[in-house]
Amino acid sequence: MPIALPRRTHAMSALTLCAALAGAGQASAQSFNAVASTPLQFKPAVEQAFAQLMAAPAVTRLLDAVKADHERSIEDLRLLTEIEAPPFKEQKRAEAFLARMKALGLTDARIDAEGNVVGLRKGSGNGPKLLISAHLDTVFPSGTDVKVRQDGNRYSAPGISDDTRGLAVLLSWLKVLNELKVQTVGDLLFVGNTGEEELGNLRGIKRIFADHLDIDGMVGLEPAGDGTVLVLGTGSHRYEVTFKGPGGHSFGAFGQVPSAIHGMGRAIAKISDIQTPAVPKTTFTVGTVGGGTSVNTIAPDARMAIDIRSDAMAPLLETEKKILAAIDEAVVEENRRWGVNTLSASVRLIGDRPGGRTQSDQPIVEAASRANAAFGLKTLLSGASTDANVPMSLGIPAIIVSGGGKTGGFHALSEWIDLTDGWRGAQISLVTVLGLVGVQGVSEPLLTKRTPRTK
Amino acid sequence: MPIALPRRTHAMSALTLCAALAGAGQASAQSFNAVASTPLQFKPAVEQAFAQLMAAPAVTRLLDAVKADHERSIEDLRLLTEIEAPPFKEQKRAEAFLARMKALGLTDARIDAEGNVVGLRKGSGNGPKLLISAHLDTVFPSGTDVKVRQDGNRYSAPGISDDTRGLAVLLSWLKVLNELKVQTVGDLLFVGNTGEEELGNLRGIKRIFADHLDIDGMVGLEPAGDGTVLVLGTGSHRYEVTFKGPGGHSFGAFGQVPSAIHGMGRAIAKISDIQTPAVPKTTFTVGTVGGGTSVNTIAPDARMAIDIRSDAMAPLLETEKKILAAIDEAVVEENRRWGVNTLSASVRLIGDRPGGRTQSDQPIVEAASRANAAFGLKTLLSGASTDANVPMSLGIPAIIVSGGGKTGGFHALSEWIDLTDGWRGAQISLVTVLGLVGVQGVSEPLLTKRTPRTK
Repeated sequence: MPIALPRRTHAMSALTLCAALAGAGQASAQSFNAVASTPLQFKPAVEQAFAQLMAAPAVTRLLDAVKADHERSIEDLRLLTEIEAPPFKEQKRAEAFLARMKALGLTDARIDAEGNVVGLRKGSGNGPKLLISAHLDTVFPSGTDVKVRQDGNRYSAPGISDDTRGLAVLLSWLKVLNELKVQTVGDLLFVGNTGEEELGNLRGIKRIFADHLDIDGMVGLEPAGDGTVLVLGTGSHRYEVTFKGPGGHSFGAFGQVPSAIHGMGRAIAKISDIQTPAVPKTTFTVGTVGGGTSVNTIAPDARMAIDIRSDAMAPLLETEKKILAAIDEAVVEENRRWGVNTLSASVRLIGDRPGGRTQSDQPIVEAASRANAAFGLKTLLSGASTDANVPMSLGIPAIIVSGGGKTGGFHALSEWIDLTDGWRGAQISLVTVLGLVGVQGVSEPLLTKRTPRTK
Repeated sequence: MPIALPRRTHAMSALTLCAALAGAGQASAQSFNAVASTPLQFKPAVEQAFAQLMAAPAVTRLLDAVKADHERSIEDLRLLTEIEAPPFKEQKRAEAFLARMKALGLTDARIDAEGNVVGLRKGSGNGPKLLISAHLDTVFPSGTDVKVRQDGNRYSAPGISDDTRGLAVLLSWLKVLNELKVQTVGDLLFVGNTGEEELGNLRGIKRIFADHLDIDGMVGLEPAGDGTVLVLGTGSHRYEVTFKGPGGHSFGAFGQVPSAIHGMGRAIAKISDIQTPAVPKTTFTVGTVGGGTSVNTIAPDARMAIDIRSDAMAPLLETEKKILAAIDEAVVEENRRWGVNTLSASVRLIGDRPGGRTQSDQPIVEAASRANAAFGLKTLLSGASTDANVPMSLGIPAIIVSGGGKTGGFHALSEWIDLTDGWRGAQISLVTVLGLVGVQGVSEPLLTKRTPRTK
């Protein structure tokens, strides 16, 4: 799911703050806060493309088909939700998703080396290549009860909205595009990817961008409120730091050995005073600590986990540098305190999410905002940590939008989605996609074709 | 058991250092190190008393009786060892010990409010009152297999040497003194006390000194090497410190809330740099730490355990004061860093052992050393944390000596005692006791009668 990362925290209401804090990073999609003002005017090319799209009978038929496919797509949703997909164990769900992609016409689709399901729906030629994706993995461990419970239009199951709904919408798009033989100008790279959640560290989407150097943009589907467009990808680095020393009796060895806990305390004290910019918002915390053998033992070991985040990579890396330096200095100081050289620290990168931002005046943001407007929705530009972080960090235009439905309970066993009028979200996001790649005979692609990156 | 607290650590051999460190405070008695030089000359009164004692046929008969009672006393040792006595659960063993005391003639013996077994064997009058004690409690929890296994003269069971051997020796002394009708000048307060180990915090012996304001000295029995006399009682205070704050999301709440872990880190950094005197040796360590919810949560809680020790009370209290001040300052600094007042710390005293020292020229030390010499043993004056800490902290002469036997494996399930010639230790310590309280018709008391303390 997009981990909601409210940017203007001083302006947060008590309610949204509570929501943002409730799950320690598992805030509901409804708690997103604005990171830029809503685009109200659009470039002429954007206006022209959407005027053409919304007026084209082929597009109207396509959108009607999305609505008509709604009930059937819920069966895909149920099928995929009930195949558990814990982090690093997405394979069974990937195989089922691949089978559905093939059945719906992407016969060349395959599973790549990182476990992503990848299928290319080619355009008429010489257009941009747009990645459209949803993630396969959930946060739930093996053995979680993933049976879908239905109560009217409300469906409950772990992972059902985050992000299985996105997968089902991709399949529905594929179905209607093929059945109505809609020919886009640009290529659509359909992807169900692995590793979005937690320690997955975006491994799936990183692989996609490593393998496909010619992607020109990305539209990802995630649970988000109507009109929400994520344009900011907060980056994060996480470290586990381990301090090791010889240890010893608190009285007998005093003065002869350093303390792993004292060394760690020195590091934490230094880290506590590191200054970071308010904009781009950059944060750090030592989230957990542990260590020591007993109260009367000079600790031979101590460990801490550090979280560093930023809305931009430069201050993230700058803060990281200061933190790593603080750890080194602390070790030197603790050794010097006792005239020894027996304390050491080792750091291990346990979390690595690049960060970046898609500027509001990019066609991809204007397309999503214009599509919202076409359906009478006000756009909220917000930020989070999602698969889109990867293209954003590469300077490739990327956004995350909703695939429809009201959602909640992310990362909790009570996760749910209310699909009343859920087809609308699938329509709006599909129009956004069509605007970006263009439809043959209707509109030109809004997404700029980029010079392919080099390895 | 006496927790061996080697004082001159810079002079420790690698072997004894290893022994002292091996069990984090559970060093074997054989690892005691000298804290003062061996007394080789004694006051005339001491020489005179021991010359009289060692020449007296009544004392010779008494010591012969100790040897003759050796095999029988092993049955008391077995009986008491096989009654488990975990910390704060000494009652059953206390009742058995009380029954044995009464059977051997101390009919007025009773169990006091702290669970100590207390019996007074009166002297002929107007002499000093000497506390002679061993502790009832072991470190082993309920359910530990305390069955005694015998292999020749070697007996193994948890707690058998620490300190059940001491209890059995007290009973043997009582038996032979009564059977041979030896009349001491001073009073002997026989005590089997509770709460010597760990979180017992010397509660039993503290109660004894609170209830008996007229005690003039103490000889405690504990597993110790031949000739070892503990004259230094290293005091210790232990604290559990808990930091509490509101917590929050590492990104969303950054800048708004303090971190319990950062606050604790600041405290540890300050504590790490506290200076303490080398003499009297004074030490501190933050032995254990824990805290935090997850890597991406600003920690709402953190806790640490601190050990402070000293060979003297003044530097112990001075160091404690600095540590508590460091905690307060750290909380203020962490709150100030974020412009809040929501971090707090609470401290709880979880260990409280007073400290002190019996000077080498005290009659009680000379008596023990002279008794060792009479049996051809060289005295080693050493230090530890034992029941004797309490009288030492009150300025009352106190020592700990061995009741005989070679011992090892303290605080481990493999604990053992080899009682080959174990009666010798019981004889030497009894002669020490007799020298201190005097024997009617043989010697004058060496222990000075003090003005009773007031409540």
